[in-house]
Amino acid sequence: MHAPQFTAESSSDGMAQRDFTVDGVPGVLWSPASGDGRAPLVLMGHGGGTHKKAPAMTGRAHRLVTGCGFHVVCVDAPGHGDRPRTAYDERETAALYRARSAGEPEGPVVVRYNADLAQRAVPEWRATLDALQQLPEIGTGGPVGYFGLNLGTAIGVPLVAAEPRITAAVFGQHWPDVLAEAAQRITVPVEFAMQWDDEHIPREAGLALFDAFASQEKTLHANAGRHKELPRFEADSAVRFFARHLGRTVNSPV
Amino acid sequence: MHAPQFTAESSSDGMAQRDFTVDGVPGVLWSPASGDGRAPLVLMGHGGGTHKKAPAMTGRAHRLVTGCGFHVVCVDAPGHGDRPRTAYDERETAALYRARSAGEPEGPVVVRYNADLAQRAVPEWRATLDALQQLPEIGTGGPVGYFGLNLGTAIGVPLVAAEPRITAAVFGQHWPDVLAEAAQRITVPVEFAMQWDDEHIPREAGLALFDAFASQEKTLHANAGRHKELPRFEADSAVRFFARHLGRTVNSPV
Repeated sequence: MHAPQFTAESSSDGMAQRDFTVDGVPGVLWSPASGDGRAPLVLMGHGGGTHKKAPAMTGRAHRLVTGCGFHVVCVDAPGHGDRPRTAYDERETAALYRARSAGEPEGPVVVRYNADLAQRAVPEWRATLDALQQLPEIGTGGPVGYFGLNLGTAIGVPLVAAEPRITAAVFGQHWPDVLAEAAQRITVPVEFAMQWDDEHIPREAGLALFDAFASQEKTLHANAGRHKELPRFEADSAVRFFARHLGRTVNSPV
Repeated sequence: MHAPQFTAESSSDGMAQRDFTVDGVPGVLWSPASGDGRAPLVLMGHGGGTHKKAPAMTGRAHRLVTGCGFHVVCVDAPGHGDRPRTAYDERETAALYRARSAGEPEGPVVVRYNADLAQRAVPEWRATLDALQQLPEIGTGGPVGYFGLNLGTAIGVPLVAAEPRITAAVFGQHWPDVLAEAAQRITVPVEFAMQWDDEHIPREAGLALFDAFASQEKTLHANAGRHKELPRFEADSAVRFFARHLGRTVNSPV
């Protein structure tokens, strides 16, 4: 079990940011700049084609850190951000662009490629969690959340199914094909976002994935609009969800 | 157009409560005890078999009044609370109890009876709104919300479809049969709650009613659980929804 290797540190707007690697996987850890004691950790998975410091990630991290005092971590998925792409990554990415420009459904490529990325990413996430729990401000035994949509759900569903340390999760915007079996093993509280008029993920597919979770407490948030039109207030809703389930109150209005 | 006739007044826990009648229909108006100026009005419709001061109504009113400074009004539906029941009301109520004790689906009776109640209630609500807008602390031209589940949705959907003064609405937990046509004429922002495992309203029925709204901004909140297990945090979500759409901020954490 390796401790995280910190490589850079900065702070702005109430939030400290530390870049690190664990076994060569690059990640970023955001924490309250005030540095006040131990707090729950939220793992954040980014979307396909983006990376750990994409605006959606830093924006959500800021809400979680300054609103609730959480620690938040995001790592680059395999083949994403600062990580090299394998020949397989290149082939699948090319297949996705081909489908898009031909106006063909991208679902079959995305589902297949995301499943491969998830197989690689789950052990990386578990090693990252092992490493971060060695930090005194995180520690072992505290509640851990997971928050990821799109690719973040493709990776997060098998991760949460396998990882008993994660006690609450926000997922959304994915097909059920590969994920339903793992979702049926998830019993922690889940909030699930989908777009009612998603041009890529059929409505029935989104509803089927939500239906698959075995969680006694699960909430579906379906908003009118296309795939990329997920309303910003859903990020605020996720912050409140984690505040409820990881035992914090929301300090600033979200 | 008649002004409201106030019949009683009290105040507790930051909230003033005034009982009134408009054209013989009894209602209750809750307002900030501090009495600070003009504020938006939220109309609240109660559920079937309950009344204007049922705990769900006073609880939601308290959140809306103390959290956002809104005025909130609830009136007894026809045949409910302090209002007399017609012979028809008695027959339909008896039919509902018969269906229940026979273990038969209650949907057909509820849908039919609620449609009749709505026809009677919509003009009463419009007269109540006329009357309350004569009060200086409410006035005309300000934004108005509507919040009602179950019977409150059966009445609210035709009301909001007919009433251009209502600019945002929270609905939920009803069959689409009679309501879908009116829902298709509603274009204001809507938040819609349903229970994923509702033993009375089939899942497809709840989804169909949500689907019917023509609103560009609409959000479905579907929670695991049976009909009466709607989570309390949905009331907080409704408060935030009205804060967003009626132009207020939430002062206390909800």
